This record gives sequence, structure tokens and C-alpha cells, in this order.
Amino acid sequence: MNYSIIRRTTGLVLKFEAVFLLLPALTGFLYGERQGLIYFALAAAYFAIGFLINLKGDAGTEFYTKEGFISVALVWVVISLCGALPFVLCGDIPKYSDALFETVSGFTTTGSSILSDVEALSHASLFWRSFTHWVGGMGVIVFVLAIMPMRKRRMGSQMYMMRAESPGPVVGKLVPKIRDTAKILYIIYFGMTVTEIILLLIAGMPLFDSLCLSFGTAGTGGFGVLGDSIASYPIIQQSIITIFMILFGVNFNAYFVLFLGKDKKEAFRFSEVRWYFAIIVFSILTITINIHKMFDNLYLAFHHAAFQVGSIITTTGYATADFDLWPQYSRCLLVMIMFCGACAGSTGGGIKVSRIVILVKAGIQEVHHYVHPRSVTSVRMDSKPVERDTVRSVVMYIGVYVCIFFASILLVTIFDGDQSLETIFTSVAATFNNIGPGLSAVGPTANFGHFSLASKYVLMFDMLAGRLELYPMLLLFYPAVWRK
Amino acid sequence: MNYSIIRRTTGLVLKFEAVFLLLPALTGFLYGERQGLIYFALAAAYFAIGFLINLKGDAGTEFYTKEGFISVALVWVVISLCGALPFVLCGDIPKYSDALFETVSGFTTTGSSILSDVEALSHASLFWRSFTHWVGGMGVIVFVLAIMPMRKRRMGSQMYMMRAESPGPVVGKLVPKIRDTAKILYIIYFGMTVTEIILLLIAGMPLFDSLCLSFGTAGTGGFGVLGDSIASYPIIQQSIITIFMILFGVNFNAYFVLFLGKDKKEAFRFSEVRWYFAIIVFSILTITINIHKMFDNLYLAFHHAAFQVGSIITTTGYATADFDLWPQYSRCLLVMIMFCGACAGSTGGGIKVSRIVILVKAGIQEVHHYVHPRSVTSVRMDSKPVERDTVRSVVMYIGVYVCIFFASILLVTIFDGDQSLETIFTSVAATFNNIGPGLSAVGPTANFGHFSLASKYVLMFDMLAGRLELYPMLLLFYPAVWRK
Repeated sequence: MNYSIIRRTTGLVLKFEAVFLLLPALTGFLYGERQGLIYFALAAAYFAIGFLINLKGDAGTEFYTKEGFISVALVWVVISLCGALPFVLCGDIPKYSDALFETVSGFTTTGSSILSDVEALSHASLFWRSFTHWVGGMGVIVFVLAIMPMRKRRMGSQMYMMRAESPGPVVGKLVPKIRDTAKILYIIYFGMTVTEIILLLIAGMPLFDSLCLSFGTAGTGGFGVLGDSIASYPIIQQSIITIFMILFGVNFNAYFVLFLGKDKKEAFRFSEVRWYFAIIVFSILTITINIHKMFDNLYLAFHHAAFQVGSIITTTGYATADFDLWPQYSRCLLVMIMFCGACAGSTGGGIKVSRIVILVKAGIQEVHHYVHPRSVTSVRMDSKPVERDTVRSVVMYIGVYVCIFFASILLVTIFDGDQSLETIFTSVAATFNNIGPGLSAVGPTANFGHFSLASKYVLMFDMLAGRLELYPMLLLFYPAVWRK
Repeated sequence: MNYSIIRRTTGLVLKFEAVFLLLPALTGFLYGERQGLIYFALAAAYFAIGFLINLKGDAGTEFYTKEGFISVALVWVVISLCGALPFVLCGDIPKYSDALFETVSGFTTTGSSILSDVEALSHASLFWRSFTHWVGGMGVIVFVLAIMPMRKRRMGSQMYMMRAESPGPVVGKLVPKIRDTAKILYIIYFGMTVTEIILLLIAGMPLFDSLCLSFGTAGTGGFGVLGDSIASYPIIQQSIITIFMILFGVNFNAYFVLFLGKDKKEAFRFSEVRWYFAIIVFSILTITINIHKMFDNLYLAFHHAAFQVGSIITTTGYATADFDLWPQYSRCLLVMIMFCGACAGSTGGGIKVSRIVILVKAGIQEVHHYVHPRSVTSVRMDSKPVERDTVRSVVMYIGVYVCIFFASILLVTIFDGDQSLETIFTSVAATFNNIGPGLSAVGPTANFGHFSLASKYVLMFDMLAGRLELYPMLLLFYPAVWRK
């Protein structure tokens, strides 16, 4: 294990977090809140600590998958531990463990909250809460890579870290240089976020709300600024959010091809993106039919179905309606698309559409194999055969995923035996897939505050494991990793 | 597709079902019930039909996996369709669809019932209901293979059919000849069943109950003869059933080695069997701790924990206590071991311990691979490396399993939207894994009668797909199969 690079990365990330904290500090000053000062003081402190940590140069250059995964896991743990402190010092969330839950939920773009009254928070804390979504959405490391000039001999390490942080079975470099790839991703991300902010402003939303909600949409997070999530905003603003939630769930490679590619038509040939839209259309239509009697007219039913489907499949977690009260088919389908998740290479969580598609195709192939035992076929995506190793790792991913999922549920039943199975099942599903709300006692109008401390730590692990695609967090607990 | 062998097998199985029906006919006569006559008449009719079907010799000799799987699927559908008729004609279950549900549940050794009052049935029907478990447990085809002399040119087909019907990722031939393997399996099965009957008689159980409950235990079915399942029998009799349930969930290869092998110690070296017992011990102990306050003393808590764990993990489905009222941890763990199931090569259902072990080992190997990317390791079982193809097919099995599982749940939510998610989830889990009871409205004291007709057919499909390990039933719906 190459400890020096881990130290170096941690120091670097602390300095970045310090810079991030200046934004809520500024917000606090603008609103004349004393909390702004706390954010500013912490920013200064973190920068100093990061600077001190990085003083000592690093010796080792050996850097492989293991170091990349561990670095990324530690970066996310450290950034959450430090990011939670301002909430406590401001007095907005007095208990540190609750503040940590909220921060992990923020950076992992989950959006599960322990707060029963969001509106009591200071503007500085509300801004910080939403901004963690934006940072976590595209990735902390990807951000560092996009900004920092790196010396040549560290080029190898960048790919390993980016691979650990970016969602999806295959991480492609858009352009030869990894730093340029990171930059392009952030430019697209930034551009789309700004577009949403402007559109929301035009539609009449106050600037503060527009900023926070756009951060939440872009990172597919789900923290809002009002107690009832998005329910009390006008329909036109809700519709803008619906569209942007769905757009942020699309594989960013498709946008790259669309904005910068030579053949723009290529963007519409990504089979994952087409499957993603097919699942969305199917879900919206069937849920609209299922719930239409609960609303005044068909359009309203369609509007709320679209918002909730977009919110859940992209793992954002905003809500305009209490879908916990919807009929069983709609509730059940929403839970299922929680697992499906958005496209690989997007800011969304879940298992990812491409993995589901590869799994289903491999399943059909398996059945086909019984009919034609001598035929040699392979799973195809985007009219290219998928490597056998990719299929294997996708299927194994889902296997490991299921193991963690069931282990988490069992642990929560031990610590919170008084909750219903539906609550426990969906609270693990909602955190592990980085959604936010579940059903019953963790439904869209409820929160996670009633869980025991132990369960909260289980759910925090799930959020991080879900965001970092399992292995980085698992490696943290794998003894062989820590041997010199 | 070689249709003639399908026709031949179907005819053969009808003749066998005719012979089976003589047993409830005899029971009816002994109890002086008019239903005995109906069973006798149907037996005669089925024998005649089977004889007529088989009059025409078969021409084709080509017989591969496809034909084997389709034959087995059809045999199970036909034997269920015909086996349901006596219930209707006797008036014991007036509606044919309900009778079919009960019969499919019987042959697939599920034990889910639509009856609200079991004790109202005639002795003949009670006997038939339980006997279907015994036939289905070790397999219809395996039985036919064990009894029937087959001409040499059909030898190939036997292996394909046995493979399709026998549970587990790898079907080993115990002895070179497939027919001898089938015979040995049935001799062990028969011997153990008789031992249980004798022990229950010694413990003071009436003969009729001993027979029926032993059939249910041996096939890991779960149909009883009393309304409260096993709850009202004395503890000593319950304990005998506990032990035999667990014994029938052991891989029969282990018994073969134990009874007939040269080195009897080999029997204790099957890692699947050791994992199976490890899971049982862990579950019994933790559930005992979890429920001990609900019972008068620790022994009673242990007794009921052991019975329920043995009943669920072997997918039998008998109950001595209403575990639906137990604390959340126990309920949740029981649902999880529903999926785990018993050993491959036993009469139990579920995913099978060996598949779970291979999955977990492959998962650990995957994590290990990130730490030591250049190491070449393979999953090992019984101190031999597991073939990569076996690992792939195990993981794919679980993938296909999950797809069918979620599709079934979604269908049931459409047809029975008024049921709770817990009811729907556990009813699919209980039928697909061939357990019997689930939780809530399908708990141990409830039944499946309240489901709509469409949901019942979904659950019947799940029972058959679960018993025949997915592919035979899936092939039935695969268009390419039916092309000449």
C-alpha cells in the first residue's frame, strides 16, 4: 500500500473543501447570518491543515487500482467528516452523527435527510447542503483532476482514481488525456446547471431556490429548501426540474458526442440511453394510468407521474406528491426503478441501466444457449460485442450488490426491530441507490431521524458504497489492503 | 424439436400418475369414502389414455438439452393438470383453478394452499395432496427412470431429462449408469421416509398422519392434515419432523457416500453440506435469542426456532408457531433463508446453498482481484477449483432468478393491488422458492385463496419455475424452441 499518495490526495481534497466552504460563507454574509463567519473560519482552518499535510513531498510512485480505490474511499470519508462540522458549529444540526448523516447523504447525492424541519436551517447551511450534491454528483476526484495541474509521473494514478469514482461498468476516456476528459465533463455539467438556473429564474423562482434546487437536480441529489420538497412550487417550475432530472441521468458521453463530436447522430445511437428513455416512458405511462383517478385531470396525473419517475430513476429523490399513498403497482414499480438507476457515466446512482441491460441480454443468451447449445453468441451493446470479462464483472457486481443489500437489511432489523419491513427494506434501497426517500416511515413526507445511531451508520456506509460502486468501500474493510 | 419423445414421455407419465392415484383410492376405500371410487376411476382412465398415446412408436432419436427441458416442463404441467381433476370431481375443491393451484403446489413441493379449512377434505384427497409432495420431491422423471427399463438408444435422453429435473448447479452421476443413479436416489429417499414414518408411529402419531406428514417432510412440501399445520402435535413428534426436514435438505450425494461409499468420512467433507449446517445453526441460535421472551423457557424458544428454521431453509413450510408475529429480525432472517434454500441434490427448493456459496466466494475473489490484480485465482469448492463456466452459469442463474422474481411481483401488484407489499413480496418469495407460507396475509395461519385468478397463475408459474430451476419453464415460452 502506497500511503504517501493517500496522504497527498487527502491534503489536496481538504484544500478544495476549504474553497467550497467559501460559497456558503458568502451566502451567510449576504443574508447577514452569523453562520457565514463559521463557514469562513472552517474554510481557513481546512486550508491550513491541507497545506500542512501536503508540505511533505511524496516518495512512492507505484500506484494501482488498489491505491486508487482506497484513496477515493478515504477522500469521500474525509470530505464528509469535515463537511459535517459546520452544521454542528452553526447549531443547525446539533448532533454530530446527524450532521454526518446529512453530509454523507449530500456528497453521495442521496438526499435522505434526518431533518424534520428543513426551513429552520440558516441560508448558509441550506446552501452548503445543496452544494454538496453538486460537488458529489460529478465527483470530487474528477473535479480535482479537472482543475489541478498534475506532474507527468502521476498520470497513471489519475486513471485509476477516476475509474474508482465514475459510475458504470466501463469508464471511457473521451479524449486521450484524462485531465481533458475531466475538464470536458465538468464544462458540460457546469453548462447544464447554469442553463437550469436561468430557466428556473425565468419561470419566476427566487435566485436562492433556483441555485439550491439546480445543484440538487444536477447532482441527482434531492435536498430541497422547503419542508414539502418541490410540492409547493408552480407546475411550470416543477416541469423544468422534471426535464433536467431526466437529462442529468443521461450518459455524459452522449452529450460529449452531441456537443463536440463530429457525427452528432452518434449521440442517439447509445443503446443505454435509448433503454433509459424506454424505461422512463413505460413507467410514466403505466403509472399515469394507475393513478389517474387520484388527480383532477389526466394531465396532472401525467405531470406527477413524470416528476416522480424522473426523480426516482435518476435517484434524485425530489417529490411533488406523496407517492407512498399511490396504488400498489405504482409504489412497487417506483421501488424497482430505484434499483435500476440512471445511465452509467451520469450523475445518477443505482445499479445503472447499462448493467441491467447487459444482465437481461446475458440472461436471454443463457436461455438461447439451451435451445442452440452449439451456437457461439455474445452479448452485444451499441452493435459491438461486450467483452466476456465485462459481462462477468457486471453480473458479479450485481451479486456483490445483493449481498451488501441483504446484510444491511439484516443489520437494520437488529438495531431497529420496531420498524416495519417495508420501512427497513425501502430505507436501505433508498440510501444504497442514493435516492433519498423510501416508503412508509421513510416516505417522501417523512425522514430518517427516527433510526438508531447504529442503523444510521449502516445507512451511511450504504450511501458511500452505492455512490462509489461498492468496491472502494469494501476494500477499506479488506485486511490484505493494509499490509505494507 | 423432436415431438415424438415428448409424446412418449407424456404417455408414460400419465400411466405412472394412474398408478400413483391407486394409493388415495385405496385410502378412500379403507375409510369407506365414496371419493375412493373417483380416484380409482380416474386412475383407470389415465392409464388407458397413456396407453393409447404410447401405442404409436417413436421415430426420432435426436435428443438434446432442449428436448429434455421441454419434456420435463410438459410432464410437470400435464401431471398437475391431470392431478387436479380428482379434487374437483370429489367436490373437495370445487373450482378447477383452485384445485390446479393446490396440485401444482403439491408436486412442486411448495405447500402453499388455497384451502381455509384443510380438515374438511376427505382422507383420500388429503392423502393424494401429501403424496404429490413425495412424488415431486425427488422428481417424476427420476422416478420413471428408476423404474422403467429403457432401450439402449434412449440412454442419452435420460441424462438430459434428469439434468433438467434435478436441482443444483452440477448434476453428478453417482454411478456410471444413469438408471442406477436414479434407483439409488429413490432407495435412499424411500428408506429415509419409512424411517420417519416408523419413528412418528413410535412417538404416538396416528398412521394416517404419520404417512401424510412424512411425505410432506420427505418432499420438503409442507401440506399437513390439520388446520394449524404441525402446532397441535406433541413436542416429541415436532422434534422428529424438525430433524427429518433438515436431513432431507442435505445433498443426497452425501448420503450415497455415507451408506455406499468406500470412505465414509468423505460424506462430511462436502463443503455445501457444512455451509448448510452452519447457516442452520447460526439462524437457530440468533432467532432463539431474538424470540426467547415470547416463550415460557429457553428450550421452547429453541425448539420453535429450530422447527421454523428447518422448515423454511429446506423450503418445507410446516409451522408450529406463527412466525409472522415474531420480531422483525427473525421475520427478516426467515425471509432471507427462504431464498437461500437447501442443498443442491436434495429435495429442497430455493436458490440452493451451493449457488450462494459459489456466489459469495466469487464476490470475495472479485474484491481480492482489486487488491492483487495480477494474481490468478479461482473459486474453490470441496478443495477443487470450480470451473469458470460453472461460476458463470451460477451467477447467471441468480440474475435470471431476480428478473423472474421482480416481474412476478409487478404482475401480482397489477392483479391484486389491494394487498400489502409485504404480502405480495413474500407470496412470490414463498411460491418461487417452493416454501409455502409467507408473511402477513399469506402467513403461516393464512392461505392464498384471496388472490385473483391471474395472480394465482403467476404464482403457479413461479412454483414450477422454482422447482424445475427456471430454464425448462422459460423454454416453454421461447418461440425458437417450437420451430421444427
